[in-house]
Amino acid sequence: MARIGIVGVSGYGGGELLRLVAGHPTFELAYVAGESSAGQTLAQRFPWLAGRDEGALVIQPFEPQQLPALELLFVSLPTGKSRDPLSRLAQKVKVVDVGGDHRFVDGWTYGLTELPGQRAQIARAARLANPGCYPAAALLALAPLAQARLIELEGVVIDAKSGVTGAGRGGASAFGYAETNEDLFAYGLASHPHAPEIETALAQLAGAKASVAFTPHLAPMSRGLLATCYARPRNGVTSEQLCEAAAALYANEPFIRLTQMQGGAGPHTGWATGSNFAFLSYAINPRTGLVVALGAIDNLGKGAAGQALQNANLMTGQPETAGLEGLPTRP
Amino acid sequence: MARIGIVGVSGYGGGELLRLVAGHPTFELAYVAGESSAGQTLAQRFPWLAGRDEGALVIQPFEPQQLPALELLFVSLPTGKSRDPLSRLAQKVKVVDVGGDHRFVDGWTYGLTELPGQRAQIARAARLANPGCYPAAALLALAPLAQARLIELEGVVIDAKSGVTGAGRGGASAFGYAETNEDLFAYGLASHPHAPEIETALAQLAGAKASVAFTPHLAPMSRGLLATCYARPRNGVTSEQLCEAAAALYANEPFIRLTQMQGGAGPHTGWATGSNFAFLSYAINPRTGLVVALGAIDNLGKGAAGQALQNANLMTGQPETAGLEGLPTRP
Amino acid sequence: MARIGIVGVSGYGGGELLRLVAGHPTFELAYVAGESSAGQTLAQRFPWLAGRDEGALVIQPFEPQQLPALELLFVSLPTGKSRDPLSRLAQKVKVVDVGGDHRFVDGWTYGLTELPGQRAQIARAARLANPGCYPAAALLALAPLAQARLIELEGVVIDAKSGVTGAGRGGASAFGYAETNEDLFAYGLASHPHAPEIETALAQLAGAKASVAFTPHLAPMSRGLLATCYARPRNGVTSEQLCEAAAALYANEPFIRLTQMQGGAGPHTGWATGSNFAFLSYAINPRTGLVVALGAIDNLGKGAAGQALQNANLMTGQPETAGLEGLPTRP
Amino acid sequence: MARIGIVGVSGYGGGELLRLVAGHPTFELAYVAGESSAGQTLAQRFPWLAGRDEGALVIQPFEPQQLPALELLFVSLPTGKSRDPLSRLAQKVKVVDVGGDHRFVDGWTYGLTELPGQRAQIARAARLANPGCYPAAALLALAPLAQARLIELEGVVIDAKSGVTGAGRGGASAFGYAETNEDLFAYGLASHPHAPEIETALAQLAGAKASVAFTPHLAPMSRGLLATCYARPRNGVTSEQLCEAAAALYANEPFIRLTQMQGGAGPHTGWATGSNFAFLSYAINPRTGLVVALGAIDNLGKGAAGQALQNANLMTGQPETAGLEGLPTRP
Repeated sequence: MARIGIVGVSGYGGGELLRLVAGHPTFELAYVAGESSAGQTLAQRFPWLAGRDEGALVIQPFEPQQLPALELLFVSLPTGKSRDPLSRLAQKVKVVDVGGDHRFVDGWTYGLTELPGQRAQIARAARLANPGCYPAAALLALAPLAQARLIELEGVVIDAKSGVTGAGRGGASAFGYAETNEDLFAYGLASHPHAPEIETALAQLAGAKASVAFTPHLAPMSRGLLATCYARPRNGVTSEQLCEAAAALYANEPFIRLTQMQGGAGPHTGWATGSNFAFLSYAINPRTGLVVALGAIDNLGKGAAGQALQNANLMTGQPETAGLEGLPTRP
Repeated sequence: MARIGIVGVSGYGGGELLRLVAGHPTFELAYVAGESSAGQTLAQRFPWLAGRDEGALVIQPFEPQQLPALELLFVSLPTGKSRDPLSRLAQKVKVVDVGGDHRFVDGWTYGLTELPGQRAQIARAARLANPGCYPAAALLALAPLAQARLIELEGVVIDAKSGVTGAGRGGASAFGYAETNEDLFAYGLASHPHAPEIETALAQLAGAKASVAFTPHLAPMSRGLLATCYARPRNGVTSEQLCEAAAALYANEPFIRLTQMQGGAGPHTGWATGSNFAFLSYAINPRTGLVVALGAIDNLGKGAAGQALQNANLMTGQPETAGLEGLPTRP
Repeated sequence: MARIGIVGVSGYGGGELLRLVAGHPTFELAYVAGESSAGQTLAQRFPWLAGRDEGALVIQPFEPQQLPALELLFVSLPTGKSRDPLSRLAQKVKVVDVGGDHRFVDGWTYGLTELPGQRAQIARAARLANPGCYPAAALLALAPLAQARLIELEGVVIDAKSGVTGAGRGGASAFGYAETNEDLFAYGLASHPHAPEIETALAQLAGAKASVAFTPHLAPMSRGLLATCYARPRNGVTSEQLCEAAAALYANEPFIRLTQMQGGAGPHTGWATGSNFAFLSYAINPRTGLVVALGAIDNLGKGAAGQALQNANLMTGQPETAGLEGLPTRP
Repeated sequence: MARIGIVGVSGYGGGELLRLVAGHPTFELAYVAGESSAGQTLAQRFPWLAGRDEGALVIQPFEPQQLPALELLFVSLPTGKSRDPLSRLAQKVKVVDVGGDHRFVDGWTYGLTELPGQRAQIARAARLANPGCYPAAALLALAPLAQARLIELEGVVIDAKSGVTGAGRGGASAFGYAETNEDLFAYGLASHPHAPEIETALAQLAGAKASVAFTPHLAPMSRGLLATCYARPRNGVTSEQLCEAAAALYANEPFIRLTQMQGGAGPHTGWATGSNFAFLSYAINPRTGLVVALGAIDNLGKGAAGQALQNANLMTGQPETAGLEGLPTRP
């Protein structure tokens, strides 16, 4: 059993990590930290853990210089909150940072497992930066097209819709039930850190400059994320070529599902709820010729905790799918 | 008092028309028809009408040759269901077709009131085709840019999100609560009748060919519609010019609200719930230079019944805002 | 026009009062106060008010000794927050306290209009305590039975379910979207101030001691409140007698709707959304003989702002239904 | 590996059984039947199964005389639909009927595992009738009190609230999203088959007659069920006695969680989502002395598929918790 820690366990991403680690065959939860619930046992914070071994763990304030012996530490803190404490880690421990502080930062490996070439790098990494939720969906949808040079990478439109847990638990009254229910809106129109993250990853994939118009939207649901991506095709590209490129890149991937349009409809975010799956579909818009690539995930699954656990499995030599074999809870 | 009829009163659009007509100062509801509830009184179908005059009206099967004397008839039937019966109307009555059968059809006036030049045509119309819900939001957002030649009209991306009532009540189990809750997906990817409707209206506005990649999405909410539109700007266009063009076109419009981004966020669909308002915002995406135009409405308000009543007011010589002055019910 | 003020305009109850007052034919909104949004104009806080007269009003911090001249002031503050400032009101102004600080307090009139004898008292009141949302639904359902001595008033069970806006906007992360969605729970099991409020009102009605087991529940919806009440019948009482007592008490009441069970189902909270209606149904449980009385309202309508406006109409000599004639927004 | 079949796989209960069986360590899914999706593969109906062994299974029309060799068959059909086909089963196969046709029917064992004495009977059963969702929650809450004679069993009030999946997928437009969202109502007020089911089980437990006023409510959520039960205590019973009785009966039960009130709040239905847990709390109402017993479950978990799998484990000699160890998916 590998001893594992989770920092940020009272947040949405940390809570999902807790669920996944508790069901993992070879990971043993040995340390949990969280600001808002420090001092409570896990069972006080998560009543369903009462009577289980994990339930007796006391949630600690995160003291990076006073950790117990651990093989790997998941850190799921709001962006901006992990850089400083992780620079002060006293012991040798592998780290998966689920937050946004170390993406494309020197000394860290960016880890979206299914992107070309990444799996081997992840397996060697000691410091891993987990992708953002929007980039996870958009990059999985666009990677085969970028790699195969089927689309122009400048001026890509990524119109994305996410459930509320993507915003983190700290969001307070702006994400109150009565405010969020029966409402949908676009945000981040001036800037959003996921836009450069997507551009950097796309550019690395294709060896060419990429620019994206990325518009996130908040939808009235707890979980789920859909990226609807529009790109200009290179000359003469057909929808068959799009599907073939995806099929080639993702052959044998356990968590990627290429789906045919059903009556003109794309994949549902609900198909992924509670799982690490990503559902991808491709079409060419008949009126404009634009490529439409769709990626549907659970923002807490493939968009956060699921991907983090997949990376941790690779980093610790476990089977890549360990602890991730649960099917979606749907409806 | 003008005698008014509603066909399709048991659908979502018809039900919202009923609410609005019941609160109209000079319209008298004199006839209601509906397939699924024919034979019931309105009060049996809508318990809150018990004890009111409207409540005693018996819902009729729609017999176009046996209507009582009416000044205007709202027809809110699924697309494909109004063409035949309306061709057999025996009496002289003004008609507003809320459904999709008569948009850009000879003999009918397309009526989105705030588009340049339409108000006067609507006031003279006897047969009016109400716009689709998606076109209403997208055209209101794009019209000032198209008219002022600020954007290229070919290759416009319209990524739109709607609540479930946009799909009509007949949708059955595909739109069941458990299927729709915690889910979001794109549909109509191969074709959707609102795409040519938008292109035709844009082309008329600008005197130039238009093509749109239109992707509707179903979001887990009852009401609300957001159109996020992306277009290439003409040379040197600034975000100020976008806002100025909208301010110029919509000066003095009672139902249009131009809104500044608030912390980078656009208008909320919830701002419109239950009202005839449309909220519009404009930006230029900083990474790609693309124009982003946002239109948020209630799909049953400005996207259906509200717009229909606004048109009917013009057609019958009533104040344009009569019966439409209610503020949004929010939250 | 009567000059009206609203204190607590940024809360849910205050926001609904704003909507209703803005649509009132003879009330002029002349003052608004609110803690969290002080300094903003109403149009900044409620974008749909841009361009309207109300929209230009600046939200004030509530200074009870520096009010403009007003005929009536609505105060919608969290329980515990209005007692002190209202004791320092410098000018003569009628007050409707929507919060819980003055119910059954000397010098204040408790005002649930349809209870026997209350209408006349309300019309004479200068200080009015609006009922709580749960008591409004439960008392309207039980009043005819209590008055006609059809039930035992000791040991009444009131199992009530409310949408989230009943908890007020200050509720923070406990009422976040992701926490509230897909969840339902009972609270206030040890004590809740609405229990003695209901008992006091019932006892006054019947001239006998009353005791209630009151259990509120939070349901995942923004608005809506259902009180399911169980009581032991007095000897030989039939369901017809229950309905007759209600019909007698509520004959000619504009906001009360007695509804027959439809296929064994009671009234829906959604029938009341956005309106001041209360829907009541009665049955005798066939297995136990217990009386079951159901009351469905919008907690922000008859449970707060609607009832408050109805009271204000009476207190200022306006028609009782002025500004309250809008039909429910449903769905 | 034990070969398992599921009849009614396209319903909500059947779909949840599919998820659980697919994750079971020693059950092999060998047969699936379903009316609405017969002829499709499981992967066509449940896209996340693509590429898995189960995904290739073709959904069959249910022909009880033409089954493959199976050790156990789950039957999850609407009440009224399983009696006839199960009477014609040609082969020897253990059956768990999740539907309502065989509860307290001769030749069938009623199986709510944690009730006193049931575990051993279930282990010997070949024909097992799974409890209804409402009885599961109510009986688990009331059983310790009934067994220990702490409450009067006549005149018990059971006010229960369920998510929509409890109504089954066949519910059509009555359970459409727009109809169910923002709505809550009571049904079954004249009669509901779960009332006699609860009475029979309680009477067997206590050896005394029981009568219950059972009122189910539909709440706007997909999953989750809360039973709020009110009963008269026997002389001098204290809340400590209630908790002690429950602690005694449920000591060592893996799926039962006794929870303390937290700030006067009871267990949340969301704590159980996707799991087989039942959360129970007890209190004495301070104003009336009534006992309040609360039971929160996932209606598709402990209320249907989870309980069914727990029973099947016992019937086939598997560890009772096999395939049921997943933690709740929350939020």
